[in-house]
Amino acid sequence: MSTTSAPAVGSAQFGVVGLGVMGQNLALNVSDHGQVVSVWNLEADWVTKFLTQHSDRKMTGSGDLKEFVQSLARPRRILMMIMAGNPVDQMLDKLAPLLEPGDIVIDGGNSFFKDTQRREAAYRTKNLNFFGMGVSGGEEGARFGPSLMPGGDEASYEHLKPTLEAIAAKTDYGACVTYVGPNGAGHFVKMVHNGIEYGDMQLIAEAYDLLRKALGLGAKEIAAIFEEWNKGKLESYLIEITSHVLQVDDPETGKPLVDMILDKAGQKGTGKWTQQIALDLAVPIPTIGAALDARVLSSMKDERVAASKKLGAPSRQYSGDKKEFINAVQDALYASKVCSYAQGMSLIRAGSKEWNWNVNLREMARIWTGGCIIRARLLADIMHAFDRDANVANLLVESEFTSRVLESEKNWRSVVQTAAGLGIPTPAFSSSLAYFDSYRSMQLPQNLTQAQRDFFGAHTYQRADRPDAGFVHTDWIKLVKK
Amino acid sequence: MSTTSAPAVGSAQFGVVGLGVMGQNLALNVSDHGQVVSVWNLEADWVTKFLTQHSDRKMTGSGDLKEFVQSLARPRRILMMIMAGNPVDQMLDKLAPLLEPGDIVIDGGNSFFKDTQRREAAYRTKNLNFFGMGVSGGEEGARFGPSLMPGGDEASYEHLKPTLEAIAAKTDYGACVTYVGPNGAGHFVKMVHNGIEYGDMQLIAEAYDLLRKALGLGAKEIAAIFEEWNKGKLESYLIEITSHVLQVDDPETGKPLVDMILDKAGQKGTGKWTQQIALDLAVPIPTIGAALDARVLSSMKDERVAASKKLGAPSRQYSGDKKEFINAVQDALYASKVCSYAQGMSLIRAGSKEWNWNVNLREMARIWTGGCIIRARLLADIMHAFDRDANVANLLVESEFTSRVLESEKNWRSVVQTAAGLGIPTPAFSSSLAYFDSYRSMQLPQNLTQAQRDFFGAHTYQRADRPDAGFVHTDWIKLVKK
Repeated sequence: MSTTSAPAVGSAQFGVVGLGVMGQNLALNVSDHGQVVSVWNLEADWVTKFLTQHSDRKMTGSGDLKEFVQSLARPRRILMMIMAGNPVDQMLDKLAPLLEPGDIVIDGGNSFFKDTQRREAAYRTKNLNFFGMGVSGGEEGARFGPSLMPGGDEASYEHLKPTLEAIAAKTDYGACVTYVGPNGAGHFVKMVHNGIEYGDMQLIAEAYDLLRKALGLGAKEIAAIFEEWNKGKLESYLIEITSHVLQVDDPETGKPLVDMILDKAGQKGTGKWTQQIALDLAVPIPTIGAALDARVLSSMKDERVAASKKLGAPSRQYSGDKKEFINAVQDALYASKVCSYAQGMSLIRAGSKEWNWNVNLREMARIWTGGCIIRARLLADIMHAFDRDANVANLLVESEFTSRVLESEKNWRSVVQTAAGLGIPTPAFSSSLAYFDSYRSMQLPQNLTQAQRDFFGAHTYQRADRPDAGFVHTDWIKLVKK
Repeated sequence: MSTTSAPAVGSAQFGVVGLGVMGQNLALNVSDHGQVVSVWNLEADWVTKFLTQHSDRKMTGSGDLKEFVQSLARPRRILMMIMAGNPVDQMLDKLAPLLEPGDIVIDGGNSFFKDTQRREAAYRTKNLNFFGMGVSGGEEGARFGPSLMPGGDEASYEHLKPTLEAIAAKTDYGACVTYVGPNGAGHFVKMVHNGIEYGDMQLIAEAYDLLRKALGLGAKEIAAIFEEWNKGKLESYLIEITSHVLQVDDPETGKPLVDMILDKAGQKGTGKWTQQIALDLAVPIPTIGAALDARVLSSMKDERVAASKKLGAPSRQYSGDKKEFINAVQDALYASKVCSYAQGMSLIRAGSKEWNWNVNLREMARIWTGGCIIRARLLADIMHAFDRDANVANLLVESEFTSRVLESEKNWRSVVQTAAGLGIPTPAFSSSLAYFDSYRSMQLPQNLTQAQRDFFGAHTYQRADRPDAGFVHTDWIKLVKK
């Protein structure tokens, strides 16, 4: 049943399915850029309500899916903003018989990229185009300029490009959208973006925890430090909002609101997938992995409170120079962050290679310079790094980043040492440092690992003096001196 | 085509499918304990060869699967030792029509436990019993006493129990086998066992690397240290073979063989699954995760060699007291190992809860006291810990382990600090310490994480002063002082 009189056939240029906050805001964003938007929602009265609220705009819509589809000019462009999972499959099944060859449906939710690959292939057999598109920037980004990561058929992208470029965030480096690659590439890149976001937030949390516990600073003092950091190499949206968050008072108690919040955070979906896929692709992303574990450990609040009584809680404070320590924490955060981005970029490269997506890493850094949660000065620097050397094996060995990390190295080590000494957990700082130290180690101790494996399981090993000569086995027992 | 004259119907008591080294050794082990074994292999001539080689034993077999099945007394007990993956499904499909209700097929390979769940359910619909059984101990264990982790129908286990108890390793605590739980429980536990094995090997590798790089010790000197450690709290098979491995000379060059081995190790299968499932079950296992990443980083040898030239390699040595440092490394290894086992046991408990397996953690520790690669004095201690408190939230808060870890704490921290200072990567030592420090922290910094998430995504948070009052949202922007 339609909730409005049926919209004129072919009267709208862009369709939005799902009128949650994200869907509404993206519809308004498209409308802002002069296109007639048509909307549909499962609860048909939402359509009426939305169109009434925005009756000053050239928008249309229907609670009847067929009417909605018919209202769109061809090739139709329909953006779905609905819950990831089964609802997406159900919606695609309902849409398919109403569409015509060449029409394009975009899933803008946080879908698992392998689902996107499957859906794209199924739509392709029907001569329909399916895009999986990462959308970052939250409600605010959706309304005024998100970072968009679309993956699908490259030729069809030309029909989306003008609209997506219009609604995306703009920075000095252009609109925060580009064609990412075929089928699942867009959602894969969004997944890694979210994994990096987990890493960034954990690194900031560790910095905050050190300033709070090691120096005994209050929320407002720490806010001022983050405000200062936001003027330097750490400049980013997340550092900025941290300084904001830390200065807000609880209207109820008058205390800093952050101090009234329970220290329990969860992990799910994209963050978890990032680590699971990294394991499949054999790409180490320990900073992001530490961030996931840290959230899980935080959620075990009752166990922690009980354990703190048996195992003792950190109590000592840092006794050195405060200013120096604050500066060292800034360096530790920066160097760890570079490691985290190096890991994320390596993962995108590995995914691109595995599924032949030909993703341009430079462009991924560019479209993240604005609109999204991880937007940061660092991303422009990463973009420039790939401009200088598109094939650099790892960000850590790109000359500019090499210099920057080596400049931070001494302070970074000292912060990890201080935290270990004081008993303040810094899993992401220390995992990042271990990543750095492992990556730059000509010799790691896995020669022993290989020897053990050959000893107990005849798993064979390669010789260092002729690695290309293949795998050999030694009868170790025979050679052990008794 | 049969390669032997058909064996007499019902003449054998135990069947083995697959005559790789593991299958052969388990067949001989069962034969040692007085049962008539019947064997089958895809390459039928292996059957003839094996039976000829062991013509002094009461064994039979056939290259014809039907003859092989017929040779077994009912209920038939058939142990498959074949490659995990599709071959197992194919074998089960071939066996099913030849079997009769109540017959039991055991998969002794390293199958993924979810495959085992699926296979068990499929066999159950045919009134057939399928067991997934972890087998640890390598070739030697299979021949003379492995650790066995069978999962399947509890009533049917009575038909397997006498044989499995006969062939399993024996320790002061009994035969290293017990009924683990239904369907996938056995393979799940074996998967976690292997994850723990990854952790143990990485911790040993880090200890070795510190002794080698920080103290500049040679392989034989380090062998002596491990030999000494094997007399104390670290006493275990892996510490023992490390001391053996390190004293073996390369027959070719006369140098320590371990120094001639390429430092590249891989990760796959069970180790990787352990981390992936831990993420699904939201159980932090950072020590095991660090071990996986360390193997991957080791495999990136060419990149590391190149990076070492740009980023510098650790060169400084430890300047303090050598004896003290060696002792500190022993404590760091011990405390980290306890963390790793605490993580593994928590993961088994979570899996058992998720799939209603009712796994007895005490018994898992017990059946690992012998036969398997991770056998160690520590496992008896863990068994005793669960005897004292079966429901302890985490091994770290069991009183005896609390004392032991707190005794090691100072040295553990100092080793992590030294390694960070010298640039020697110790990802598993430091991840373990961060796990310990997080687990015992009453207050973690995820209050900030929750504040950030609510700021940018309206994700809501709980208040610390009334955590049970549900999730609330704050309009942060409105409260920020401009």
